[in-house]
Parts: sequence; C-alpha cells; structure tokens
Amino acid sequence: MKEKLLEFKEYIKKIEYMNSATSVLYWDMRVGIPSKGIPYRGEVLGHLSGEIYKLQTSDTMKGFIEYFDGLENLDETTESMVQRAKKNYNQTKKIPEKRYVEYTVLVTKAEAAWEEAKSKSDFNIFKPFLQEVVDFNKEFIGYWGYKTNKYDTLLDFYEPGITVEKLDKVFSGLRVAIVELLNKIKKSDVKPDSSIFTTGFSKERQEAFGLFVLNKMEYDFEAGRLDESVHPFTIEFCNMDVRITTNYHENDLKSALFGSIHEGGHALYEQDIPDSLQGTRLGQGVSMGIHESQSRFYENILGRSKAFWTYFYPELKKTFPEFNSISLDDFYISMNEVLPSLIRIEADELTYSLHIIIRYEIEKALINGEIEVEDLHKVWNAKYKEYLGVEPNNDAEGVLQDTHWSGGSFGYFPSYALGNLYGAQFLEKILKDIPDFYQEIEKGNLSDIHSWLKENIHKYGAIHTPSELIRMVTGEDLNEKYFIEYLNKKYSEIYNLK
Amino acid sequence: MKEKLLEFKEYIKKIEYMNSATSVLYWDMRVGIPSKGIPYRGEVLGHLSGEIYKLQTSDTMKGFIEYFDGLENLDETTESMVQRAKKNYNQTKKIPEKRYVEYTVLVTKAEAAWEEAKSKSDFNIFKPFLQEVVDFNKEFIGYWGYKTNKYDTLLDFYEPGITVEKLDKVFSGLRVAIVELLNKIKKSDVKPDSSIFTTGFSKERQEAFGLFVLNKMEYDFEAGRLDESVHPFTIEFCNMDVRITTNYHENDLKSALFGSIHEGGHALYEQDIPDSLQGTRLGQGVSMGIHESQSRFYENILGRSKAFWTYFYPELKKTFPEFNSISLDDFYISMNEVLPSLIRIEADELTYSLHIIIRYEIEKALINGEIEVEDLHKVWNAKYKEYLGVEPNNDAEGVLQDTHWSGGSFGYFPSYALGNLYGAQFLEKILKDIPDFYQEIEKGNLSDIHSWLKENIHKYGAIHTPSELIRMVTGEDLNEKYFIEYLNKKYSEIYNLK
Repeated sequence: MKEKLLEFKEYIKKIEYMNSATSVLYWDMRVGIPSKGIPYRGEVLGHLSGEIYKLQTSDTMKGFIEYFDGLENLDETTESMVQRAKKNYNQTKKIPEKRYVEYTVLVTKAEAAWEEAKSKSDFNIFKPFLQEVVDFNKEFIGYWGYKTNKYDTLLDFYEPGITVEKLDKVFSGLRVAIVELLNKIKKSDVKPDSSIFTTGFSKERQEAFGLFVLNKMEYDFEAGRLDESVHPFTIEFCNMDVRITTNYHENDLKSALFGSIHEGGHALYEQDIPDSLQGTRLGQGVSMGIHESQSRFYENILGRSKAFWTYFYPELKKTFPEFNSISLDDFYISMNEVLPSLIRIEADELTYSLHIIIRYEIEKALINGEIEVEDLHKVWNAKYKEYLGVEPNNDAEGVLQDTHWSGGSFGYFPSYALGNLYGAQFLEKILKDIPDFYQEIEKGNLSDIHSWLKENIHKYGAIHTPSELIRMVTGEDLNEKYFIEYLNKKYSEIYNLK
Repeated sequence: MKEKLLEFKEYIKKIEYMNSATSVLYWDMRVGIPSKGIPYRGEVLGHLSGEIYKLQTSDTMKGFIEYFDGLENLDETTESMVQRAKKNYNQTKKIPEKRYVEYTVLVTKAEAAWEEAKSKSDFNIFKPFLQEVVDFNKEFIGYWGYKTNKYDTLLDFYEPGITVEKLDKVFSGLRVAIVELLNKIKKSDVKPDSSIFTTGFSKERQEAFGLFVLNKMEYDFEAGRLDESVHPFTIEFCNMDVRITTNYHENDLKSALFGSIHEGGHALYEQDIPDSLQGTRLGQGVSMGIHESQSRFYENILGRSKAFWTYFYPELKKTFPEFNSISLDDFYISMNEVLPSLIRIEADELTYSLHIIIRYEIEKALINGEIEVEDLHKVWNAKYKEYLGVEPNNDAEGVLQDTHWSGGSFGYFPSYALGNLYGAQFLEKILKDIPDFYQEIEKGNLSDIHSWLKENIHKYGAIHTPSELIRMVTGEDLNEKYFIEYLNKKYSEIYNLK
C-alpha cells in the first residue's frame, strides 16, 4: 500500500502543478497581459484546463479512488485527499461528456450575452441563455442526485455539508434581525457624512497607506505581491506565492483600502497553510464560506472597528492630512454608514447580507422550479423593495448586476453571508481566548489575532469540512446568533439606539 | 492523409500551448515573482518541461514523423514542421534516458558551482563540473553522430547548417580585419569622451525616452510590454504577446537604452510573424544568428548611426537637457567609442566580435580534445592578450564571466557574431531597395525599414533554414565581406583614419 500511496500522491502533485501554472496564466491575464494577447491566452488556458480535467477523471484516478476509498488506517490528510479526489471525479464523470462539452460552450456564450445585456440594461438579451443554463443545472442535478432539496447539490460544491434546511434557518433569523435593526437606524438622529471619503485621493498615496496596513497585518510580501486589476482578487500559486490585487479610485478612499484589507485576509489564510499540505490539493481554504470569514473578519470586524482606527487613524492622517479636521468618532461613524442600496458589492456591512439572502431565495426557488427565469426581474425588484426598501430603475442595477449566473455558479452566493456568520462565531471564541483583544488592536498589534487565526484555522488547510472546523474551533455548529449580537451591539452604539 | 495531417497539427499545437505556458511562468519568475515563491515555481516548470519532453519524444510523435518524413506533395510549411519535429525527436531520443537525466541533474549543479566560482573568482571551483559537462557533450555527440567535425553537431542546434569549415573561413577574415582596424584606431588622435553617459539619469526619465524610441520603432505595446529584470531579455507567448525587459542603471544611460533597442529588434521579429504560423512551431525566428541579426541591426546599424541620432538627439535632449551643451558629432563619437575590454557584454560594436571569436576557438578545440578544461583559463587569458591586448586580473572577469558553459550551451556563442554578419549583408540589400534609407532615418521614419524587414525576413517565421533565407534575401551565401566594409567605413570616419 505504501507504494500505491506514493504513486497517488505523485499523481495528485501533477494536478497541482498544472493548477499552479493555470493560476499564473490567469493572474497575468487579469493584471498584465497586452490586449491582443488575450485570445491566444484563452486557447492556452483552455488546453491546460482540458489536461487537468483528463487527470481528474482518468482511469488511473478511478483506480486510486477505488483502491483507497473506505480503506482503514489512512491518516487524516490522506483520507481527505481521497475524499476530495472522489468528489471531483464524481462531479464531472457523472455527466455525459457530450452534455458537459455543450454546457461549456453555452456558458461562454451566456457570459458574452450577460455582458451585452448588462451594458444595454436589457434582461431580455440574457434571458434565453440564462434559461438554458438553469435547465442544464437541473439536468446535471439529475445525474448527480440529491437527497432532500435539489439546490443542496449545488450548495455542496461551494460549502460542503451546507443544506437548504440549515440555510433557511440561519438566514431567516438573520433577515428578521437585520430588517428590525435597519428600521431603528432609519429613525436615528445620527447622520453619518460619508462625503469625507470622496474628495480626491491620488493613487500613490492610497497605495502607500494600503501597503502600510498590509504590512501591519503581516501579509508577507516575500511570498506575495500587490497589483492593480479591475476587480480585486486573491490568487495563490503555492503557499509561498499568494498575490492580491486592488483597484484605486481617486474619488473613493474606501474602495481600494477595504478591498486590500479584504484580499489581505484571504491571502493570510493561504500564506499560513503549512508546506506539508502543498501538492495534496488540501493546501487551500476549507470552503468559500470559511475563506470569506477570513477576508470579512479583516475587512469588517477588524477593519471597520473603532479599535482598529484608534491605531490607524493617526497613521492615515500622516498620508492624508485632509482628515486632520475630522475627529476619530466622526471618521468611524462615517465609515460605518448604513444605507440600503441596490448594488451588492457597494453595500455596507449591515445590509450586505440582505443582498445575499435575496439571491439565495431566488436561486433556491429557481432550481426547484418554483419561479421561472421569465419572472426573475419582477421577483428581484419585489424582494429588493420588501427587504431593503429600494427599487432598481433598470435591469443593470437589478437582476443583471452580478456575473455569477452567466457562468452557472448557482450556490455560490450564500458563501458571502456564511463568511459573516462564521466570522462572528470566531470572534466570540477569540474574545474568550484573548481577553485584551481590542486593547491590543488599539495598539496596532495585529500579530496576536493573526497567530490565533493561523493556529486555529489556517494551519489545517482543507483537511476538515466547514462543519467540522467550526465545531472544532468554537464547540458549536454554524448559527446566526453571534453575528446578530455583533451587529446589534455595533450599530446600536453608532446610531445611538436604545 | 488529410486527417492524419490534421491530427499532427493538433498534436504540435499541444506542444506549443505548453511552451507558451512555460514561457509565461518563466517570464514571471524573472520579472515579478516574490522570492519565497521561486522553489515551487522551479518544480512547476520542471513538471511542464517533462510533459513537453514526453510529447516531443512519444511514440505518437514517432508515428507522425515516420508517416510524413519523405512524403511528397507536402506544402512548404508542413514539410518544415515535420523536419523540425524530427530534429527535436532525434536530438533527445538518441540519448539513453538514464544519461539524459544524469546530465540534467549535473547541469543544475554546474550552474550553482559556476555562480559560486564567479562570486569567489575561482575557476577551480567550477573546473570539475565543467569537465563533466564537456565529457557529457562529447559522449552525446557520439550518439548524435557527426560528419567532419564534432563541434558541427553542437553548432547545428543553434544555427542549422553552420559548420566549423564555414565559420573558420568567415571568422578568420573578420578577426584579421578587426585587429587591423583596431590598431589604426589606437593611433588615432580622436579621443571620444564616454563620461557624458555616466553622470546620473533617473530611471523615470530613462524609461520615458526608451518608450518613445520603442514606439517609433513600431514595437506594438498592445501586443507586448516593457518590464525590468536583472538581465534584459525578449520572450514570446504568441505573436500577439511578445514582451521585453531592460535594466536601468542611474550611472549608465547607454545600458538600458541600447538594451531596449536590442530587445525591441528581437521583439519586432516575433510580433511580425503571421497568425498562420501560430501553433506550428514555425512561429519563431529562423535561428539564434538570424534573431541576433535583427536585434543588432536595430541596436548598432540603426541605433548607433549618425542618421538615427540626427532625429533622436533633439528628442533625447528634451528628456535629458544635460546634453544641451554637447554637439551631435561629439555625442555620436562618444557613443561609438572603441575600447578593447575584458567583458563581452560591455564591449563596443567593433571589438564585440573578437570576444565571440575567442569563445568559438576555445569551444571548438575543447570539443575536439585539442585543449583540456584544465588549461582553459590560461588559453583564455592568452587569447585576450593576443586579440584584444588586455588581460584579466582574475577568473571572474576572464573565463568565468559567461553562464553559457555551465548550462552546457556549447555552440551558442557564434550566433552573436553571425548576427553581425547577417545584419551587414541585409543592410547591403536594403540600401539597394531603399536608396534614401539613411535620409528617411534622419527624419525619424523607422517605418520603411520595419516594413522591409517584415516583408523579407519576419513574415517567414522559421519556415526556411538560415542559409536558405540569407540566399533568398541577398542572393549570396553568408560571408564576412559586408560587415568588414561596414566597420571600416564607419570607424574610419569616426576616428578620422586615412
């Protein structure tokens, strides 16, 4: 068995090498490629993906899975490797190859149609493609199978173990709490002035301060780099090369800053994964939701806290003296302005989850045939009115705003809100383990919290499932309680609510 | 046959995709990688190289070669593709796999040993490794076979068709002519002042002017980009993505400037290759020598000409007003200062070829067993004294200065000098085809010459052999006559020789 295991690990390593190469090409395409080079790069990436697909679904892989699956005496890491390989194998192999290829072609067309539809703000252009994408997903669920709810099968790809049953419970509690809090805030006399963030800040100054914060966060620049791209992202080629990007807007100080902190949170996770997990496919985050818990923890729980800015605000003023006349309190309140809005990625910390819940409810109903693509923008607009009290003027700022559906990524959205819930659960435990947590943050010490996250979360890579991990770390299952408490406490203080 | 041909072309395309991916990873490693990411990147590149090796030497490839080789009715491109694939196949397949792997391992060690030896300036550290590398190359020549001279087999990898017999002839003529001219220059009263290039120039200004020149050269920035790296290089991922790098030194204006022009010359070649040759392995330059002819044409024949600076000097002064007090004549003469020196890559246009001829003579003798590794630095120093009148004070500025031998690249050096010879032969033809060539350059028109090079050289990619190409373009075989005439004319004027 020892020899077979060695062979299996070598085989997985090959997939990892190809993944790493693919990621470099993808990073370059988003950060540095000259425009005319894009079509050929697409072909090269297409070829590499095909090779990875072949490796993941080969008879050799099948042989490994059959040999190791259910075998006793496997260590934890190997067992996880086998289960992950099996999942990947089934995910693709159960679909007839012909249908898989047709779907790949469709998705490319759907993405182009979505782009056109969004630019023209016309849902009708996208509708027939979306219909086909939805139909394909329903058909695939038929091949993959499901237990209770069809949508569970899709959710499981992004957040293993999560189900409609669980999400219905936590999201409904969360929704009620947020709407209630929102209604109180609307009546508050506190009126934050967020215009202080839009008066014009050169890219150079923004970059300098962003680098300062990332260094304090202990993002390792010898194992990463910061570049610019249209949409910010984090990408890892190995634990020693984890790169982040941000996007500078001269008239918006918050965008690049919180973008960098957010991506920095993702990147710390990847940089902290131990060498021993490299090349095993477990050298990555547990799930999308847990990954978002790390980025959102840094962006919101830390990055939008009073303690954080007690240290960083004087530093910020050194780079941006225009803030000299604004008090820390006003700065802090302005940064946390709650304002129900139409666009998810521009939403504040409180209302953000409502954007996600709307998408979750729509996806769930769509996949289960309870609503039709035809009615999607009507449903969308109605839910925005109900939950957020705002209504889109057009499809571009409504149902067409996100790219996810054009790529067939149903089941992805909930990860963002799960990140909020996990993050608040971790915070609860952190406050027990590090009683002077906020005092240390006030001193600019981001080292203790980094060590805690590394020791309790990052160092395991993807060995565990999300539900195993949250239980290991906090002793509890996923629940919405702590995030609601966190929101109520923070925003009651800011908005002076009784 | 049609179907088989399609299969063959698809197969070659796969190799090309892998090559393109490898090049992106390599570029990133030299331009942007964080230091800790290098070891894993080495592993990924090792894997990809292995995959390319497998594709090039597979039974499938063997089948294609056996089927197509010698087949009549193949079009020119397909015939070239087959011959190139065959050459690659034989090159690797004739060596016992075990020996090939051992050689790969040795070369890695030899490169590390060379680095250490150079930093300590001690040839003895490198000697045992070099001995093994030489022995391996001799052994490999045994597998590959040779006709007249063992060294021919190695030369052929870089400059197909070139032989010791041909090189002995052209290089001896060249050497005599250069030494003669050099002796006259030594007695000249003209004393160029090259200190004007070392007074301190910020990177930003150098970059701005470099970009201006590259744009005038018609380097397409939508199909390329300019970055910084320790050693300048050109790399292509496809004809639509050809990137160059340069290296700025604040106390040396010439280094980055002529480096950029040189790499720009390489890059124009690659950017001009037609789409129809993409994915065929013929979408590249003919040979190292022809490639160098393009880069050196731009760097020296154009870039160090009076006509070029008649247009560009006023532009240069806009960016570098410190030159306002220096006349065009003085500037031109200073730029073309002839000064026999120890280091190849710092040599002037005239003496450069002598550095190459020394290396050529040593390699030839080494491979044919006429001198021993043991005596290499003595031979080196003696030749430098004889040809250039200078003697190294230590091995670092002597026999250890270049990396080529540590990587086993015997036969590569002559390409550089061949580039000079080809370039001058092309110039002779250009002056017939474009009688007002220099007048147009004086006006800053680099478009006509670019079109000529594209039409006569670039557009063919690697369809032809170097000897076919030089004959097609100029009607003559390779010879040293035109380069000697060019040197005599140019330097007689500059140094006021009779």
